[in-house]
Amino acid sequence: MSIPHPLDQLQAAELSVARDVIVQAHPDSVILFRSIYLDEPAKASLTEFLTAEHSRNLSDPTPRPPRQANVHYDVVRADKSQIYTESVVDIHTKREVSRQAYDAADQPSIALEEYRVVMDVCKSSPVFQEAISKFKLPKGFVVEIDPWPYGGPDPGEVIPRYLQGLCFAKDARNGNPDANHYGYPLPLIPVVDAHKQELIRIDKLATGGTADGLAHGTHSPNVLDHCRPSDYAPELLDIKLRDDVKPLNVLQPEGPSFKVSDDSLIEWQKWRFRVGFNPREGVTLHDVRYDGRSVFYRLSFSEMTVPYGDPRPPFHRKQAFDFGDGGAGRAANNLALGCDCLGVIKYLDSLNINRSGDVSVAKNVICVHEQDNGIGWKHTNFRTDRAVVTRSRELVVQCVVTLANYEYIFAYKFDQAGGLTVETRATGILSVVNIDPGKTSPWGNVVSPGVLAQNHQHIFCLRVDPAVDGYKNTIFREESLPMPLDPEINPFGNAYQVVSQPVKKSGAFDASPSTNLVVKLSNTNVRNPISGRPVSYNFVPPATQLILADPRSIAAQRAKFAKHHVWVTSYKEGELFAGGKFTNQSQAERGGLADAIARDDDTEDSDVVLWSVFGLTHNPRVEDWPVMPIEKIELHFRPADFFDRNPALDVPGVRNMTSVLADGNGTCCAASGEVQRAPESHRQGGEDIPIR
Amino acid sequence: MSIPHPLDQLQAAELSVARDVIVQAHPDSVILFRSIYLDEPAKASLTEFLTAEHSRNLSDPTPRPPRQANVHYDVVRADKSQIYTESVVDIHTKREVSRQAYDAADQPSIALEEYRVVMDVCKSSPVFQEAISKFKLPKGFVVEIDPWPYGGPDPGEVIPRYLQGLCFAKDARNGNPDANHYGYPLPLIPVVDAHKQELIRIDKLATGGTADGLAHGTHSPNVLDHCRPSDYAPELLDIKLRDDVKPLNVLQPEGPSFKVSDDSLIEWQKWRFRVGFNPREGVTLHDVRYDGRSVFYRLSFSEMTVPYGDPRPPFHRKQAFDFGDGGAGRAANNLALGCDCLGVIKYLDSLNINRSGDVSVAKNVICVHEQDNGIGWKHTNFRTDRAVVTRSRELVVQCVVTLANYEYIFAYKFDQAGGLTVETRATGILSVVNIDPGKTSPWGNVVSPGVLAQNHQHIFCLRVDPAVDGYKNTIFREESLPMPLDPEINPFGNAYQVVSQPVKKSGAFDASPSTNLVVKLSNTNVRNPISGRPVSYNFVPPATQLILADPRSIAAQRAKFAKHHVWVTSYKEGELFAGGKFTNQSQAERGGLADAIARDDDTEDSDVVLWSVFGLTHNPRVEDWPVMPIEKIELHFRPADFFDRNPALDVPGVRNMTSVLADGNGTCCAASGEVQRAPESHRQGGEDIPIR
Repeated sequence: MSIPHPLDQLQAAELSVARDVIVQAHPDSVILFRSIYLDEPAKASLTEFLTAEHSRNLSDPTPRPPRQANVHYDVVRADKSQIYTESVVDIHTKREVSRQAYDAADQPSIALEEYRVVMDVCKSSPVFQEAISKFKLPKGFVVEIDPWPYGGPDPGEVIPRYLQGLCFAKDARNGNPDANHYGYPLPLIPVVDAHKQELIRIDKLATGGTADGLAHGTHSPNVLDHCRPSDYAPELLDIKLRDDVKPLNVLQPEGPSFKVSDDSLIEWQKWRFRVGFNPREGVTLHDVRYDGRSVFYRLSFSEMTVPYGDPRPPFHRKQAFDFGDGGAGRAANNLALGCDCLGVIKYLDSLNINRSGDVSVAKNVICVHEQDNGIGWKHTNFRTDRAVVTRSRELVVQCVVTLANYEYIFAYKFDQAGGLTVETRATGILSVVNIDPGKTSPWGNVVSPGVLAQNHQHIFCLRVDPAVDGYKNTIFREESLPMPLDPEINPFGNAYQVVSQPVKKSGAFDASPSTNLVVKLSNTNVRNPISGRPVSYNFVPPATQLILADPRSIAAQRAKFAKHHVWVTSYKEGELFAGGKFTNQSQAERGGLADAIARDDDTEDSDVVLWSVFGLTHNPRVEDWPVMPIEKIELHFRPADFFDRNPALDVPGVRNMTSVLADGNGTCCAASGEVQRAPESHRQGGEDIPIR
Repeated sequence: MSIPHPLDQLQAAELSVARDVIVQAHPDSVILFRSIYLDEPAKASLTEFLTAEHSRNLSDPTPRPPRQANVHYDVVRADKSQIYTESVVDIHTKREVSRQAYDAADQPSIALEEYRVVMDVCKSSPVFQEAISKFKLPKGFVVEIDPWPYGGPDPGEVIPRYLQGLCFAKDARNGNPDANHYGYPLPLIPVVDAHKQELIRIDKLATGGTADGLAHGTHSPNVLDHCRPSDYAPELLDIKLRDDVKPLNVLQPEGPSFKVSDDSLIEWQKWRFRVGFNPREGVTLHDVRYDGRSVFYRLSFSEMTVPYGDPRPPFHRKQAFDFGDGGAGRAANNLALGCDCLGVIKYLDSLNINRSGDVSVAKNVICVHEQDNGIGWKHTNFRTDRAVVTRSRELVVQCVVTLANYEYIFAYKFDQAGGLTVETRATGILSVVNIDPGKTSPWGNVVSPGVLAQNHQHIFCLRVDPAVDGYKNTIFREESLPMPLDPEINPFGNAYQVVSQPVKKSGAFDASPSTNLVVKLSNTNVRNPISGRPVSYNFVPPATQLILADPRSIAAQRAKFAKHHVWVTSYKEGELFAGGKFTNQSQAERGGLADAIARDDDTEDSDVVLWSVFGLTHNPRVEDWPVMPIEKIELHFRPADFFDRNPALDVPGVRNMTSVLADGNGTCCAASGEVQRAPESHRQGGEDIPIR
């Protein structure tokens, strides 16, 4: 086994070392493991290593940061209560380097095994069974429970570790386990103590839409009789699948243009970066460089909150923090060749542990592939009719996560012009509740009979730790502003001014498309040789709607990060989470972005971090049912005076010889043919004018 | 020859008929033709025909609208002045149906032959030659002139037909006609009378950036000595082309999934529409239907204005209206297989005429092809680990236009979920002027030594004539608004309200991402059977920056449409152009959107038209030189309660069997393989709970 790079994920043997160290350190307790993953080296030591690596000064012994594991686990007490604990273990010395135990105010994310607890507790609870028995469910249906985070406790409510269960019925008559239960929502929510493994209470749900306001109990016992199947699995559909989608194959006969080595290193078209993966953030990118020059130190999805806008209790507690309450890495799909991606694919695996700390492989959680993105640049010389055109190739690093009903697709897309696009796609199944026959609701849309899809928001936060030609950067806000007509400066009134201001102190601000706000990640110590301006990357923050909940509400208080589009902070070790480290059952954001900017740090020409908050307000359409077509948001990072010309100028404009002409009737193709020039050109070229 | 559909482009024989009718109608004059193209039938008669067509009630004789041609031409007078004239000719009866002559206040777009006039006039002008001779140009360089519209005359300035010429030098020493002259800008602009074919004057240009304000003449005679080559043609590059872009082939062994017939009809995946093409708008789409249901009556790019923000005269007149001054159809590229598109391509041609009315073929001005757009929808059942995933196939109808230095790529992308995305890409070469050595400017960026790329905006307008389940539609503004915490209605403060208001009168409003403004194209007479809401298509107007020029300026006055994002008008026959019919040399928008809304028409439940204004403020980067990587803007039209579920639910989730695994080193590929399941699933499925 070669020496791992400091950013390589921990290997199975390393996980086992960490597990064993923790087990041995608690000889008298039962340990329930939650996660074990690489403890990324501190930035100071990692940048020292990276600097040596890139200057090819790696000597032996190399100044290599220690190889350490984060270990998250519960220590089980005799009274069934559990102490959530985090340790750092040094793999080489097999020693526990640090340990911190937390109390009930700090609730870790939900372990997958806790899902089972909710299901098992309900299944064996006579109270729950009795509540269910009051519904006259159709014959052959079974109950399914989707465990959810409890959400933010109400003001004054103090709770231990709770989970709630959204309940549905599934048509089990034909035995297909993929029959869609979300089409049959049941109007009750059991609340379970996950430590004591007890049913705490059952909340009853309003089903009347508007007419009965916050009341519940308006439904008949035959609560599902007006519902109907909402299947998406092809074998269960009542409609014929399309037979006219002809194959579209992506073939790369010479293989991909990228290289993956060292477990974490990806090289493609002058880009070079490391890929990390951890249970909370999923994919992380590190040490992102173009043609040897540093651009980003670290990129990650930091948090996402999904507050629902239905005020009828207990729906106000439907608010997931999908990273802090769940974990994107934990929820990553095992991707499949030819379904999730086309072409030549490199999949990367990760490792999981169970509650005992046993290691298993999470296959294909990341895919790496290339795709074509249309014309990259083109110019036709109208004098000669000569067109020079290149296509834009992209490298995609993608991960798909399933969080109960919803799916999110996260992708980093590198291009040949020095740009990076960060893409999110939302798909999957809407979170729905029961509604009485014939009723509608201002809080959502009836997407299937008896099924109310509640209005909600998805608010994401991307964390960007820039390293534009070095680790000391400055964030600028650049705006294009009107100038009044003025006889001296602007005599005809057509001028506008571009005003750029450095962000001198940590703080937050909002997108401003009306002033064309561009956020520049700049290095003021390095000037572009042509323009004289600081080398930069541009980022236009998307002006998506911010959180709508009343600022005094628990929903807004626990997601303060969702109040602004852009946050600028000074780098602080371990400060990775926009909504704070502990979001599960939080009543207010703690240690998140609001606290980070309160330090009032200087941020000019320093180790600065940018956080981009964006999202979508999702008022469901009937078309989003039963599985919604993707909703896409893209963030663009583009070089601005970083290079001395278009970096894609050297992309060859090769004609693809496998493209063919269609004959128009869709049944066959003509052989590949030359494009004919117009018999008489419809352009008028000019002659050169010689200088006398 | 079969009877053409009323929306089929005119055929060559039809163009000749129209030409002959006009020539014969002016026996004593010289006629210089500008364009001949289909006069689209009036909406009343066309909708009658379409209704019959779709109800399969086409009888013989069919109530077919008359087949007519628009003929635009100049009648040349003895004094060389020209009367711009428009006639409509009935092809069947060979009669001139109508004629209108215009005076100098109404200047038509620039004919391609007028480009040549500018070049020829300058070439033969001793005054121009003398002005050039004052520059000490490098040996072997020649002068190139890019003819441009004159722009808006200054207040009080009355002119006949003027064009201006942007002047550059080209290194002709190696004889390559594609050497890039834009890297050598010359600081003078000749102004030419296109009718009299005379040089009117030469404007001298400021080259000092800021220091000398509006002054010119600060440059040395060696005005290009600090410039350097800016080539993009591969044979002229001083850098090596990349050799690591391995082929990515799109193969469709069973042919495309679309059908093109009748010259104009395209059918694909339940979509069915007609494609038109005319000299001004380029591609137009008509009678767009999904699964037999009408969605749009007509879609077109209506106008684009490109005002420059450099106040130094005469740069204030750099403002192109690329549709009204030039014409997207006239400037369409002849697309090439394997360069402009991959896969199986169907190209559509158009026809051009020259000044004599002779017809020639414009080959491949439209391309039609399919592309893959990643995951379309996906859900993984966490209980069974079963993932159902479909890919999103798109049908693209694309056109690329070259307007002197710039390129624009316009594409309509249909998807399988009933959505339509309208895409624009800007690429090509920046419009640049000379700047003295070592200087910078607040009005632009130095992108190459001696080359100042001026700040500018591109403001587009898309015209959308909706027909959502019929021709009577209502536009709604739907906003998501916060609700205060309230003990009765919103006890926990998490609720928000969705407020929808019909646009009752013609008018304009702006994008509003902070309230999640969605524009709904609705038919209030047809209700969704599930939700009970009006069937609709949703459109989120992009909140791009509007025109920055002072509202009192000529630049802003002639582009009033660029002051608002969304305009709603009542349908009026022939009202197609956001900036008015005549933009060339306009001093104010006439007959454009500002005038249209002044009619104060009722727009509810009526034949209503939506106009979307969007664009980009382009403050150039060094990376935009010498040819800029594409800048993309997308507009999305998505069904909202138009269907009774996700219309892409019937897209089969077929695994693509040609995708293969990469081995990671980029040199070869493993054979196509099954994806292994994790040895121990990292998900925890729950058991069904039977009902007692």
